[in-house]
This record gives sequence, C-alpha cells and structure tokens, in this order.
Amino acid sequence: MKFSPALQELMEALRCLPGVGPKSAQRMTLYLLERDREGATVLSRALQAAVERVDHCSRCRNFTELDICEICEDPRRDASTVCVVETPADVLAVEQSGSYRGLYFVLMGHLSPIDGIGPAEIGLDKFHRRVIDEGIDEVILATNPTVEGEATAYYLSDVLHNEGVKVSRIAHGVPLGGELEYVDGSTLAHAFSGRRPVE
Amino acid sequence: MKFSPALQELMEALRCLPGVGPKSAQRMTLYLLERDREGATVLSRALQAAVERVDHCSRCRNFTELDICEICEDPRRDASTVCVVETPADVLAVEQSGSYRGLYFVLMGHLSPIDGIGPAEIGLDKFHRRVIDEGIDEVILATNPTVEGEATAYYLSDVLHNEGVKVSRIAHGVPLGGELEYVDGSTLAHAFSGRRPVE
Repeated sequence: MKFSPALQELMEALRCLPGVGPKSAQRMTLYLLERDREGATVLSRALQAAVERVDHCSRCRNFTELDICEICEDPRRDASTVCVVETPADVLAVEQSGSYRGLYFVLMGHLSPIDGIGPAEIGLDKFHRRVIDEGIDEVILATNPTVEGEATAYYLSDVLHNEGVKVSRIAHGVPLGGELEYVDGSTLAHAFSGRRPVE
Repeated sequence: MKFSPALQELMEALRCLPGVGPKSAQRMTLYLLERDREGATVLSRALQAAVERVDHCSRCRNFTELDICEICEDPRRDASTVCVVETPADVLAVEQSGSYRGLYFVLMGHLSPIDGIGPAEIGLDKFHRRVIDEGIDEVILATNPTVEGEATAYYLSDVLHNEGVKVSRIAHGVPLGGELEYVDGSTLAHAFSGRRPVE
C-alpha cells in the first residue's frame, strides 16, 4: 500500500536532504501535513527563493544574493589579507571564532583530479589574478587537513611563490580541551613538528 | 556573522521539519545550494503540491487527493469491518503487516480534553453515524496503548455499545522477537491478563 501520489512525491523529494532516509521522510511528510501546513508553505517558498536568488560573490565566491557579498564590501575589514577556505560553512566557522578580520576566498571544493576538478573549477586562476590586481599582502591557507585540502594548499602556495606575497598555512595540532591520550597520531605528529619555543 | 537573507530564511524554514535543529538546517541549506539545486526545486514544488492537493478522505479521514480514498473505494476490501486508528502512519503500519482487509477510520489524533480535543474534533460523531448508516459488523479499536489512546478506545466502545455492533480491541502483550527480560511491567501485565488457553 502506498500513500496518495502527492504524499509519495513529497516523501521522495525530502530524500534529497542530507541525513534523511525513507523513515524520516515519511515522518516529516505526515508531520507537515497533519500539523504544520503553514511551515510547509513557508519552506516551499524559502527553497524556491534561495535557489533563484542565491549565487556566488563575484569577488570571493561565497554565497550571496548581491553581486559582491557583505564581507567583501565591508570597509572595516583588512583588505590586504585573504583567507582561502573550501566551503561557506568554513567561512562561518572562522567568523564565529572572531579571530580574523581579513577577507575570504571560497573554493567551493578542493582539487580532485580524479573527479575532473582542476584549478579552474575551484577558481584558482581567478584568485591568482585577484592576488596580483589587488596587491594582497598575505594569503592564509585554511583548507581542510585532508589529502585533497593539503594538495590544494600546496598547489596554491606553489603558484603564489613568485608573486611576492606572504603565504601561510593555519596551524594544525592538539585542539584546545583535547586530551593527548585521545588525539590521533597524525595530529600529534603535526603538533610536534609545529612546536614553538616557549618565550 | 550571518548568511545572506535568503539562506537565513531557508535555514529557519527547514527547522519546521521534525528532528531538524539549527546545525542540521545549516548543513541542509549549504548542501542543497552547493550540490542539489535541482532537488531543492523539486522539493519546493512537492511541498506546495502536497499542501494544496492533499486533504482528508470524506469517508475515513485518511490523507488523500481524492474525495474518497483508494482504500475506501476498493471493492475487494471487506466493508463490514472498520479499524479505528489515530494517524495515517498507523494505517500504513497495519497495511504493511498484510493482516487486515477491512476499511479504516483515521481519528487524526485522540481524545485530549486538556487540549480541547473532544469527540467532534476527532470525527467520532461522524464515525458513529457511519457505523449505523453502513451497517458495520465489527469495529476494531487500534488506537495506541497510551493513556489517551486507551481513553479514546473506551469512549468509542461505550458509544457503540448499544448499536448492535461487535467492538474489539487489538491485543497487547509481548512483541514477537521481544525478550521477556526487557519487556516493561505494564506490557507484561497486559500479556498475563490477556492470556489464552493453549489448544
């Protein structure tokens, strides 16, 4: 036995959300129809609006509805420093730490030759021009400490090597509140090789 | 720092889904925008279509896009028996067990005087008329074994007492595959009081 077509279609459509399987989709569908039809209507409109209006900032590639995003336009930010991250969620994480006042460049991914993702696909040609044109002083590489993220960081530092710009990589090591006992070996190796003299 | 308004609105709108908190909503929003804009469009349309088209069957109150739902219209089903359940999900569960060929009546809730939900709100007046008009032989009460579900079942059996219709309640006891050791006391008490002679 199946539900009526419109319910069945909604259940299948909800599966596009990450982490939503058939049981959750069924629960969500019945919940919305039974108890929150208004919420469903609002959600329908919000999805449509986001898909239609949200695009990439033409300067930093982050999501925005404007041509140039709010961070890029903010005159209080230090335009001489650019932090390179993989995704908009990374921008949010860095912003929430409150430790950075420069600009961003969002790759929307990382180098992955096996998936056909080369430098052009993640906007590195554009970023290279931007570094030269805008006279950036420092580029901070904050890609993820994964194989692909490291490769992307390495590629970028190589490309920018001859442009007279300072290139740095964020530190990797034991996280605050972490216990040495439970930290994995690669992180510990990073923590030891990146040790600094106590002043 | 916040995302752009359309993203922010989508994140808040996703919170209407059961089990979706702020972190999941953010993850879903970025996932859809980055990787599945088509899925987001499909979901938007499916939500709108379901809200606009799905209503209650005028006979059994289950969700349907038709006036009378497919189960009620099916001539192969036994129209002399009606099973009373609380929600459309319960109908699906009974259907999937493959053990029932009669019709349904979906209360879309249960009696709950404290929330202002009386017999009329869950369609019991309508159901009472249906039992008389259609000459139903047996009413199977399959409301949940909760305080409200039991009260609803008790109320219905009381109302139907004088209508010359057989009223039964589904059995409660130890579930198949369940281990006695882990079954709660109330269920065990039900299992003992509902014991049947071995033939």
